[in-house]
Amino acid sequence: MISFLDKTWTDVYKPTLILRAEVAKANIAWMADKANKAGVRFRPHFKTHQSAHVGQWYKEAGVTAITVSSVTMVQYFARAGWNDITIAFPVNIREVAAINELASKVSLNLVVESLETVSFLAKALTHAVKVWIKTDTGYKRTGIDWQNIRGVVDLAKSIKQHDTLHFAGLLAHAGHSYKEYTLDRILDIHQQTLSRLQELKSELEQAHFNDCELSLGDTPSCSLADDFTGVNEIRPGNFVFYDVQQLTIGSCHEKDLALAVACPVAAKHPERGTVIIYGGAVHFSKDFAEANGTKKYGLVVGGDNDKWAFDKDAYLSAVSQEHGTVKLPADVLEQVNVGDLLLIVPAHACLAVDLIRDYRTFQGEKFRAWS
Amino acid sequence: MISFLDKTWTDVYKPTLILRAEVAKANIAWMADKANKAGVRFRPHFKTHQSAHVGQWYKEAGVTAITVSSVTMVQYFARAGWNDITIAFPVNIREVAAINELASKVSLNLVVESLETVSFLAKALTHAVKVWIKTDTGYKRTGIDWQNIRGVVDLAKSIKQHDTLHFAGLLAHAGHSYKEYTLDRILDIHQQTLSRLQELKSELEQAHFNDCELSLGDTPSCSLADDFTGVNEIRPGNFVFYDVQQLTIGSCHEKDLALAVACPVAAKHPERGTVIIYGGAVHFSKDFAEANGTKKYGLVVGGDNDKWAFDKDAYLSAVSQEHGTVKLPADVLEQVNVGDLLLIVPAHACLAVDLIRDYRTFQGEKFRAWS
Repeated sequence: MISFLDKTWTDVYKPTLILRAEVAKANIAWMADKANKAGVRFRPHFKTHQSAHVGQWYKEAGVTAITVSSVTMVQYFARAGWNDITIAFPVNIREVAAINELASKVSLNLVVESLETVSFLAKALTHAVKVWIKTDTGYKRTGIDWQNIRGVVDLAKSIKQHDTLHFAGLLAHAGHSYKEYTLDRILDIHQQTLSRLQELKSELEQAHFNDCELSLGDTPSCSLADDFTGVNEIRPGNFVFYDVQQLTIGSCHEKDLALAVACPVAAKHPERGTVIIYGGAVHFSKDFAEANGTKKYGLVVGGDNDKWAFDKDAYLSAVSQEHGTVKLPADVLEQVNVGDLLLIVPAHACLAVDLIRDYRTFQGEKFRAWS
Repeated sequence: MISFLDKTWTDVYKPTLILRAEVAKANIAWMADKANKAGVRFRPHFKTHQSAHVGQWYKEAGVTAITVSSVTMVQYFARAGWNDITIAFPVNIREVAAINELASKVSLNLVVESLETVSFLAKALTHAVKVWIKTDTGYKRTGIDWQNIRGVVDLAKSIKQHDTLHFAGLLAHAGHSYKEYTLDRILDIHQQTLSRLQELKSELEQAHFNDCELSLGDTPSCSLADDFTGVNEIRPGNFVFYDVQQLTIGSCHEKDLALAVACPVAAKHPERGTVIIYGGAVHFSKDFAEANGTKKYGLVVGGDNDKWAFDKDAYLSAVSQEHGTVKLPADVLEQVNVGDLLLIVPAHACLAVDLIRDYRTFQGEKFRAWS
């Protein structure tokens, strides 16, 4: 394994996102194809890459509808030409002025879970939007509990009363799948999510809501499952790059990892088997993947150019504000010099992208995520 | 305890830094006075606030020299008129062009720990800089081990050989003090740091380095210690705002907390005693304070205006990308409505500032950290 970038990328001075563009494009094509075969709408989550440039790769794969997690991201992607956007976050009613402006330009999908929010929107919205009911199928973060049939039906009725609110269906995020580490457990959660949503949909149909769509979409389930019976759309995001957390869960293989961070080496400590990189919590966040009691904030990339290889003993073991501590096997450490770049696949790609924003590809493209 | 901001701050739409400016100014005055009484130079770390506006408060307290942790921050604060700046991070030699440009304008202090870096600088620098030897007094992140006398003396000799490198002294960061939770243990570490640096300084004096200054500066030690014998400068940063981590360690009291994040409430879940805020890992990072096995990503602020009060059962208990889950006692939760703002003191102020950047004060000032 070698530190291979410093010779070719002399204009990388500080932590920078490095993309294997062909891998990301293959991930997109693969998921688009999977959605197509399953007969479901593919509405990928763009919070992972936050980039109009990467968005273009989705357009080329036939994608026309997207998911984001904030009003700010709708503004950014609407400017980039996207016009069918879901904000997969319970409406932040303080941003209603911006929501109104956006709803006048694009087809906007909002997510609600309370009568309070529906009442507010009914009064404050000046343009029509689609409204999904956030349903909690077991993650217990947001949403109405799937067993609270009366709560869901009442909310759907309330939505239907108002001209500007068009009831779209039930939207769920099985975020608890990120805590699982076996294929069977992830598929169990996926099947449970499906059956709970279908059960609730039947109840809504009995209450004469016949146009209830089902939307779901965590990356582990969408990567590993093949059964999407009754589902109308999927919303995975992380799969475009994957990361060490997804690799640890088993959602992807090493060959599917598309994103790394190039970090300058600032110091070497052979006596403790570490090097210090310029690359810390303000670049990687403090998220980690944990296996066998070892926390890994990232994996060191070896190999040649975009042919990546990994070594379980080469990883980002600690981060403070700007400092990263990288563990390396002795024979690798010996080859590294101060001033070299180390490439590191982040534990959580979405957060590293949000923090760094400057991308480049092995083909020499440079672009920036929203700012 | 009440949610008190939504009535007055109708133009806060998303997570925003809220400062008790008077508290921050009092923290600055207190630390400046402490340094003054101890006869040490006060070179505060500006990575915590990253703001020219807050920097002005330091100028008004008589501060003329500062510390930062990246070349980018030097560029920002040099533009704001600061001209004596230390980068407390082992030199990132890939940024030597920017370093040269800065060294032509301001008095620049660099930190080194290897002959490799000194050789590089000797060849590449076009303007004189001051050079500190990073000394590891026990934290084991960066620096030459304090017991490696030969290594330190050799490095000092190497520095002295070059006209553009002016040997300044020994610089240490006792970052292991952040892991302690009692006054005695923090003071033990502080005394150990002092004696180790003094011992090494004596060795340098025997090797005829008579102008060796000592620089140290973690917030816990600088907050709690009074003995700075032999020290020439202190570099604390976090103390300007403090945060939940420092409160948990015991470096400060609740009255010293100057920074909170205002976050819109997006959903309520009385059945599990939580509300969901717009405020997640992209605002707070994933850093936390831990006490008695409970992880707290932030503390909810109660009280009236800038008279803050806290409740141990009201805290930010989980963060994902944009979602924050806040635990609240039943009687508090009852008073909170969707669309209200909750004020939350972050676990780690430096990272929340780096992520959010938009400040406002209770006096109505609005400003932005570097961008």
